[in-house]
Amino acid sequence: MVSLDNPRQFLIDLYSTAIAAVSADKCLPQWLPEPPKDGRTLVIGAGKGAAAMAKAVETHWKGEISGLVVTRYEHGADTRHIEVVEAAHPVPDEAGRQAAVRMMEMVKGLTEKDLVLCLISGGGSALLSLPAEGIALEQKQEMNRALLRSGAAISEMNCVRKHLSRIKGGRLALACAPARVVTLMISDIPGDDPGIIASGPTLPDPTTCADALAILRKYEISVPDNIRQHLENGDWETPKPGDARFSRNESHIIARAQDALDAAAAMASAAGITPYILSDCIEGESRDIALMHAAMARQVVTRGQPFARPCLIISGGETTVTVRGNGRGGRNTEFLLSLAIALEGLPGVYAIACDTDGIDGSEDNAGALYAPDSLARAAEKGISARALLENNDGYRFFSELGDLLVTRPSRTNVNDFRAILII
Amino acid sequence: MVSLDNPRQFLIDLYSTAIAAVSADKCLPQWLPEPPKDGRTLVIGAGKGAAAMAKAVETHWKGEISGLVVTRYEHGADTRHIEVVEAAHPVPDEAGRQAAVRMMEMVKGLTEKDLVLCLISGGGSALLSLPAEGIALEQKQEMNRALLRSGAAISEMNCVRKHLSRIKGGRLALACAPARVVTLMISDIPGDDPGIIASGPTLPDPTTCADALAILRKYEISVPDNIRQHLENGDWETPKPGDARFSRNESHIIARAQDALDAAAAMASAAGITPYILSDCIEGESRDIALMHAAMARQVVTRGQPFARPCLIISGGETTVTVRGNGRGGRNTEFLLSLAIALEGLPGVYAIACDTDGIDGSEDNAGALYAPDSLARAAEKGISARALLENNDGYRFFSELGDLLVTRPSRTNVNDFRAILII
Repeated sequence: MVSLDNPRQFLIDLYSTAIAAVSADKCLPQWLPEPPKDGRTLVIGAGKGAAAMAKAVETHWKGEISGLVVTRYEHGADTRHIEVVEAAHPVPDEAGRQAAVRMMEMVKGLTEKDLVLCLISGGGSALLSLPAEGIALEQKQEMNRALLRSGAAISEMNCVRKHLSRIKGGRLALACAPARVVTLMISDIPGDDPGIIASGPTLPDPTTCADALAILRKYEISVPDNIRQHLENGDWETPKPGDARFSRNESHIIARAQDALDAAAAMASAAGITPYILSDCIEGESRDIALMHAAMARQVVTRGQPFARPCLIISGGETTVTVRGNGRGGRNTEFLLSLAIALEGLPGVYAIACDTDGIDGSEDNAGALYAPDSLARAAEKGISARALLENNDGYRFFSELGDLLVTRPSRTNVNDFRAILII
Repeated sequence: MVSLDNPRQFLIDLYSTAIAAVSADKCLPQWLPEPPKDGRTLVIGAGKGAAAMAKAVETHWKGEISGLVVTRYEHGADTRHIEVVEAAHPVPDEAGRQAAVRMMEMVKGLTEKDLVLCLISGGGSALLSLPAEGIALEQKQEMNRALLRSGAAISEMNCVRKHLSRIKGGRLALACAPARVVTLMISDIPGDDPGIIASGPTLPDPTTCADALAILRKYEISVPDNIRQHLENGDWETPKPGDARFSRNESHIIARAQDALDAAAAMASAAGITPYILSDCIEGESRDIALMHAAMARQVVTRGQPFARPCLIISGGETTVTVRGNGRGGRNTEFLLSLAIALEGLPGVYAIACDTDGIDGSEDNAGALYAPDSLARAAEKGISARALLENNDGYRFFSELGDLLVTRPSRTNVNDFRAILII
């Protein structure tokens, strides 16, 4: 049984345990297919975990291997056979575009004896961006911005994006034909729909050019004439489920948010703390999601409902921050700061919130830690939690307390990890 | 065991059961004190439940009784001995102000043999509004608006309000001295702090004029010179806890959100559905709180976590809606519309969300009902759930489906009631 003399360390260990459970090292080897009898094996891929996944493949692969994966800056690994290109995320840059072009070249001329291992993880969509032929990068960017402003659902935005791309929506797999493609994915998508992870470059796509046009019409997004023409002609149609060219392909999600939450739950159980996983797919405004977590923690403390103490409330998903101020911090410090204000120092309640990729938003921390004395310690330093939250300045709040959790890029990504310990 | 052939009716019955559990009829009689031996009994009070509470007093009181309570328009009751005045809420009007003046007159000249029964419920703060002497109504309104914009906490706003009033913050009880004051309250305040319900007109107040000034300074709210002078002089100081003038008084919360949730839970248990009360005090933006409820319902359906099916997830509190569009509806239809979009017709999940006062925002409905076919039925009618949510038009969505729940003012108020049935 783990000692709870140090709730802070317990929560940090919980996070490390969760990350380890979804690392490529841990999850990938058992999914590797048999090497082809007399064909080549080529590794391609993209995402924050791509280099770590490539490294895991190299370590466990029996046979010759080569390839190219693209990952985010500072997310590389010391591979020997598979080239790793680092590129920009979340806004694509030239390094990413060039890598995409090279990858499309590399898979030309494969035969049906060859095997392509495609390693996909969150961030892959931005890292592997290649506009359809006939569309200018600026046009695509402008439509993307309009979509983001429109209130369209993620699934609707993805539908449009897939039909403006030369690589998404299954096209990368088509470029590999007639080779067999095995796709291994680490999912950062709430709900784990494989076709959405990194916009599904190797998976058939049920949506059509007509769907994309309907969505653009629905949200009154202006479409340049050349693009409208191509969509109306169906020039940029994606391959559909049932397409014979995908019949020998396979895809597997090798790690997902639930796996990280389950690992944390198991650790808590072993420590005599009953774990409750609320959900692996919570979306919504970070500060409001924090208020509901706080209200539930309060109910546990004051009424023993719906859970008895001691317990651990665990949740995952992808919350968002609507930026109103000019402070620093990602959704995890925002979550914890809002939680702190709502809990008002309620005794016995401790919390951690981190991004599983090791980077909260675009800062240098993975997340932070909250304790019952957080507000009081801040007040002693003359820091107003409420004013900082108003300014989206969660980073500063926890930085001043020395309660940021700074790790390094974890080189995996299953989105948010939150745990509230109530003792 | 209640049949679950009709989940819709089950949810409506659940709401009725919850309301009945916090009605004055049900909760008030057992709290009535002994009538005074040879003094008068005077009944005063304010709030959405004041008339129903007065009626319950009349029905069960043994002895002579008279008085005056103020309630919201259309919340009256056919009392015989206690006068009921109807006034405006949430923006005070002249009817409310006059009732407050009359009430202050009425309690003059009582003796220590007399008893004052004070009946307080949500809405009482607006219904019983009387600016401190020397402050113009317009000045008070302007400072109130500035406070609302400032991001100050409710407790901070209440502190300022209590020090600008002639009736709040214990002053009404002082006006009754030397009579004994027994206050019976229906709480609509998350956390049930008695001093906050209707701004505690009969309860001592731990906050000071200096606190009020500090809060006004902190949020940089402009204070007219005459008001500043009065606050600096302490002219408007409230009576403090321990004040001997309160020593014979009593106050009791006779109904609160948790009571309504408990009643619904008991009904679910009797029907073989395991109930889980998440919290009685959830605050935050309605649509985001809905996303978290939806994520939890999804986890129940897909993974049996943290609860097994069949189950009922119950919650209360006070969510808010940041109005961006020009549609109709209160926080309950907003909640359900956001829930509908997130659940995407997930089979087996039904929900109700209503205001326990019987009025969702300022509409004619108490709330609405959601079923797995809600989205599909709306689509058949050409209604876009997403577009309506964008326009804060939840009322229209559920109105078009015939799924508004229209009751009447319940004449009680313990805030939000939400139940999600997962079968």
